[in-house]
Amino acid sequence: MCDLLRINTDRGVMIGDGKSRFSINGKPIYHFVGTSTFSEYTVMHVGCVAKINPEAPLDKVCVLSCGISTGLGASINVAKPPKGSTVAIFGLGAVGLAAAEGARIAGASRIIGVDLNPSRFEEARKFGCTEFVNPKDHNKPVQQVLAEMTNGGVDRSVECTGNINAMIQAFECVHDGWGVAVLVGVPHKDAEFKTHPMNFLNERTLKGTFFGNFKPRTDLPNVVELYMKKELEVEKFITHSVPFSEINKAFDLMAKGEGIRCIIRMEN
Amino acid sequence: MCDLLRINTDRGVMIGDGKSRFSINGKPIYHFVGTSTFSEYTVMHVGCVAKINPEAPLDKVCVLSCGISTGLGASINVAKPPKGSTVAIFGLGAVGLAAAEGARIAGASRIIGVDLNPSRFEEARKFGCTEFVNPKDHNKPVQQVLAEMTNGGVDRSVECTGNINAMIQAFECVHDGWGVAVLVGVPHKDAEFKTHPMNFLNERTLKGTFFGNFKPRTDLPNVVELYMKKELEVEKFITHSVPFSEINKAFDLMAKGEGIRCIIRMEN
Repeated sequence: MCDLLRINTDRGVMIGDGKSRFSINGKPIYHFVGTSTFSEYTVMHVGCVAKINPEAPLDKVCVLSCGISTGLGASINVAKPPKGSTVAIFGLGAVGLAAAEGARIAGASRIIGVDLNPSRFEEARKFGCTEFVNPKDHNKPVQQVLAEMTNGGVDRSVECTGNINAMIQAFECVHDGWGVAVLVGVPHKDAEFKTHPMNFLNERTLKGTFFGNFKPRTDLPNVVELYMKKELEVEKFITHSVPFSEINKAFDLMAKGEGIRCIIRMEN
Repeated sequence: MCDLLRINTDRGVMIGDGKSRFSINGKPIYHFVGTSTFSEYTVMHVGCVAKINPEAPLDKVCVLSCGISTGLGASINVAKPPKGSTVAIFGLGAVGLAAAEGARIAGASRIIGVDLNPSRFEEARKFGCTEFVNPKDHNKPVQQVLAEMTNGGVDRSVECTGNINAMIQAFECVHDGWGVAVLVGVPHKDAEFKTHPMNFLNERTLKGTFFGNFKPRTDLPNVVELYMKKELEVEKFITHSVPFSEINKAFDLMAKGEGIRCIIRMEN
């Protein structure tokens, strides 16, 4: 975790002199999370720049940023499902789909998607999900539903909603003895993770991750290589392509949930 | 975790026929946690028997049972402190001292003992503790005291008290990015582990363990070998030696805390 560059969304300025590099009519425009990539040219701290394969199409690999890499890395780097294992993914938004894809790449054979919205299930199959659980379809806790489906619990779970109850469920649904739960979602600031500590004594592991434990400068080029080697199909993460002049339309689509995954195309 | 033999303290009988193998004057005497070793001869399920080095002195290696092995294994098998790392041990009873010894064997260079009873500190040095923190000596949370001593947090922590607040402190005192906390103590049945989930997102890991993740039949013989190779000094765990006829005196010593570690000597 980089002490110098770790995201501080309130900073909005360069670290060196505490000033912005953008302005319009003399008024400063502040930087966004250290990159400010919604502009044709930008100024970044050297620590925020990763060199990727020059053959990689930028209009595709630009999606390998925060959410998608976080989900992929949560499975590949943190949950590390053994070949043939069972993984539960909580939340089938962009991050959860990426986590399912990561579990598939790692070699999991059963990938169970858990979501309250059944309209997401069909598409999630493209990302490796083999089964689905809608907690609304059951009158018992989803932990118990998953335990019954898997002879005692899943081998790995990845929580991608940020909902505190889903976090607790994701921990409590893993198998005693070897189960690993990975928390990815960003919780509400007042949320409290509560569980009976006997759940830990049964040899379970609970891990959190930030950016899927990828070290951006050294690891992102390798994620791009996964795409170049066709082990990772980036295209299926792209649902819309919107010119920069219509950026607000893209945000509207995202807010409505119509474009759960989205890409902004820059105009030259 | 063995589904068949996992400790069920209420069982008290053999699995095969649901009966006891002991009696006195025709009245059954029940088995204790699958072993019933407070008798000169006993009957056990084959899965409860481990074959150890026949040269090992039984009046010494018998202490390598539940508590001591749990503490050793919590450090050696679960926390796995890298060489040169810093480990905090919460609770310096027999299990905590064994955890400190395990951290020393694993190669930790700073082992910080945390206990409310300062009379335990001097003896804990024999088990590898290099520093001590008494939470009563500080008017800030012990997590913060440890963070200040270690430039942001310890690399590993092992909780050996079973107190729910110590469990939470043990988790919150590890360093972001790589810290691992191991919960060993058995909590009160109504206890609830509560923490802000952002503590997980900062790439920390929380693990529980049962019997130090040792698989008794295959791993206990190797723990005995540690003693035979003089890498583990079992003698320092023995504070009293009491003949079997005075077994109740041994329990009294334990209850008073005078013999925090204790051994029952069998009479032939």
